[in-house]
Amino acid sequence: MPQSDDRRARGNETLDQIHGPLGREVAARLAKVAPDFADHLVDYAFGDVYSRPGLDLRARQIATIAALAALGNAEQQLKWHIRGGLNVGLSRDEIVEILMQMAIYGGFPAAVRALTAAGEVFDEIETAAAEESLQDDA
Amino acid sequence: MPQSDDRRARGNETLDQIHGPLGREVAARLAKVAPDFADHLVDYAFGDVYSRPGLDLRARQIATIAALAALGNAEQQLKWHIRGGLNVGLSRDEIVEILMQMAIYGGFPAAVRALTAAGEVFDEIETAAAEESLQDDA
Amino acid sequence: MPQSDDRRARGNETLDQIHGPLGREVAARLAKVAPDFADHLVDYAFGDVYSRPGLDLRARQIATIAALAALGNAEQQLKWHIRGGLNVGLSRDEIVEILMQMAIYGGFPAAVRALTAAGEVFDEIETAAAEESLQDDA
Amino acid sequence: MPQSDDRRARGNETLDQIHGPLGREVAARLAKVAPDFADHLVDYAFGDVYSRPGLDLRARQIATIAALAALGNAEQQLKWHIRGGLNVGLSRDEIVEILMQMAIYGGFPAAVRALTAAGEVFDEIETAAAEESLQDDA
Amino acid sequence: MPQSDDRRARGNETLDQIHGPLGREVAARLAKVAPDFADHLVDYAFGDVYSRPGLDLRARQIATIAALAALGNAEQQLKWHIRGGLNVGLSRDEIVEILMQMAIYGGFPAAVRALTAAGEVFDEIETAAAEESLQDDA
Amino acid sequence: MPQSDDRRARGNETLDQIHGPLGREVAARLAKVAPDFADHLVDYAFGDVYSRPGLDLRARQIATIAALAALGNAEQQLKWHIRGGLNVGLSRDEIVEILMQMAIYGGFPAAVRALTAAGEVFDEIETAAAEESLQDDA
Repeated sequence: MPQSDDRRARGNETLDQIHGPLGREVAARLAKVAPDFADHLVDYAFGDVYSRPGLDLRARQIATIAALAALGNAEQQLKWHIRGGLNVGLSRDEIVEILMQMAIYGGFPAAVRALTAAGEVFDEIETAAAEESLQDDA
Repeated sequence: MPQSDDRRARGNETLDQIHGPLGREVAARLAKVAPDFADHLVDYAFGDVYSRPGLDLRARQIATIAALAALGNAEQQLKWHIRGGLNVGLSRDEIVEILMQMAIYGGFPAAVRALTAAGEVFDEIETAAAEESLQDDA
Repeated sequence: MPQSDDRRARGNETLDQIHGPLGREVAARLAKVAPDFADHLVDYAFGDVYSRPGLDLRARQIATIAALAALGNAEQQLKWHIRGGLNVGLSRDEIVEILMQMAIYGGFPAAVRALTAAGEVFDEIETAAAEESLQDDA
Repeated sequence: MPQSDDRRARGNETLDQIHGPLGREVAARLAKVAPDFADHLVDYAFGDVYSRPGLDLRARQIATIAALAALGNAEQQLKWHIRGGLNVGLSRDEIVEILMQMAIYGGFPAAVRALTAAGEVFDEIETAAAEESLQDDA
Repeated sequence: MPQSDDRRARGNETLDQIHGPLGREVAARLAKVAPDFADHLVDYAFGDVYSRPGLDLRARQIATIAALAALGNAEQQLKWHIRGGLNVGLSRDEIVEILMQMAIYGGFPAAVRALTAAGEVFDEIETAAAEESLQDDA
Repeated sequence: MPQSDDRRARGNETLDQIHGPLGREVAARLAKVAPDFADHLVDYAFGDVYSRPGLDLRARQIATIAALAALGNAEQQLKWHIRGGLNVGLSRDEIVEILMQMAIYGGFPAAVRALTAAGEVFDEIETAAAEESLQDDA
């Protein structure tokens, strides 16, 4: 868990740890429309909240994946956080379990959409790995 | 994790493990209006989903507490699941961390309501413990 | 189905048919804060929509009860419309069926709250009937 | 209304009755990501709930179409259930009436999206019928 | 603020004032599926509500942009109302401020989606202006 | 608009300006359960967002009142922000206009609840003023 004194540094370290290069890309895209909001996202969400020591990142991603699946209206962000969950140690099967459970709280249609989104993330990862392996062979 | 072959038995065991006597009380109250729905709740939610071996009950309660807090319209159920979280090993501080994080996904008003609900659950537990301790002394 | 030419008259007739005296009471209470809004409710919701001939009031109450249960944040209005459903010919069992089905779309907590609300309406009706019967005997 | 003793059989029969071949396709697609969840959907939603005798499928589709329109975040599932509504005997005009009414409960933007989705379903059906008719002529 | 006596005329004038030609196009598209609903939208939303004198259109667009951003499930309508906000005098910076503030009420993912939508509207306006300027030069 | 360099000071000044003594009370109550969250609320929501110079507090309260009314699940917070709106210069009639307009976006039941909440706030203010006037006379 990053523990820099500075909110921005701590936020960026946590963002990197959860989302890898994708996190900075999303923040950079946001910064074109609303630079201060991109800073709020890094400083508050990642620097003030996610980096707190009282809960590990695996547990935090379980919470976020569950919430986004139950809310059912944030497909893109759910996909980012499914990748984030894999990055901090959740297995695909564990993510599927979380999403199945969300049928109870957000309804079946929300769970169907969330599991479909998870299937797309898993496929994108396979495809990227296959392409990389092809390039390595070349 | 309960592993009875029978859905009803497995559901009731899981319900007891998470919610203690409160679970059966809630189910019994529901059964007065809709007996088959009370069975669906036990059989499907607890017998088919919560009892699955792929995710432990601690992780499942993180997911549920997060979802209910983010949805922001189920105060009573959130309070039941906060108690359930404590029952399966989450600490009060961990629950507070989960709820603080939900400000990012469900908004600050939802997080304020969820933390207020958690404070009420913690107080109720203190009060019940104090009363029990008084009776033990008598 | 009321078919007055005038929106206000048609709205009030439809309101009476679905909600009985309760409808006008709710509208009158609203009118104290926002008189024009109370008119919008009668003229548009009941005069323009509910009174349309293409769907009977029984089907319309099924739709409304389902929607309010799935949205899960309008307990008072759900109770009014459960009474309205009984007024236009739905049985208690049919209402319970609709609410049970909503667990699939709005999640189990929303269905639990809706069924609890239905149980309260049914009890209130029993109590009122018992009191009336006592008075008749006196 | 299918009445097999077996949940799976009863679920599949009800799924077929409401959704035709589309239902099994959706379930099969889900099964690639989460096979047990696809079973839950068939067994619980269709085997335990939709197949219950206390409410006919026409009334059940009114309830589901209303709920999905009011929730306003499940366009794909709403389109499936609009087709399902037509399959169990709702007319296009009745579906339009239900969706218009949902402006009152889910807001006008949700109703606009739902009516747009309905228009797309109706167009897809026309196009498929026109293509079939062309092939028959050939 | 349009003040025709007739609801339809007042609705259309207000629609034009906020949305320009786009408003009538959207209404015309809706009218193909549900002509009476298109009338309700014009008569009630724009003729009865938006045209009321007690709040100017700038304030009304602030309210609507905020609500649609916080609800987080109506991207297309949010984009229309961002354009509408610019039409009645909000600056791009003011719209960005409103959307940033909605992270507090609808959550960060909803604000991210709303700001992304705003960025797309601003880009579309730039592109249209650039094309027009090219044509003027030709 | 408060412009202290320090987030905490700026947050508290803005909180005072919008909510008067009530704001600090709510923050203090929260701090008993989650002291760091109470700080986030002051520092981020009020210190980073509400105090930004690009939009005045009157416009910010229009946005917040609209969002809370449309979301429809935060009665207590809506009441606080209705008082806040009055504190920064909105009239009762303007608040009623905003809430009436939200029927279009959050549905009529949400608007009915919001207007009822507004009526309660207005009554509480009258009662408090009457009591104060009685004490002044004594």
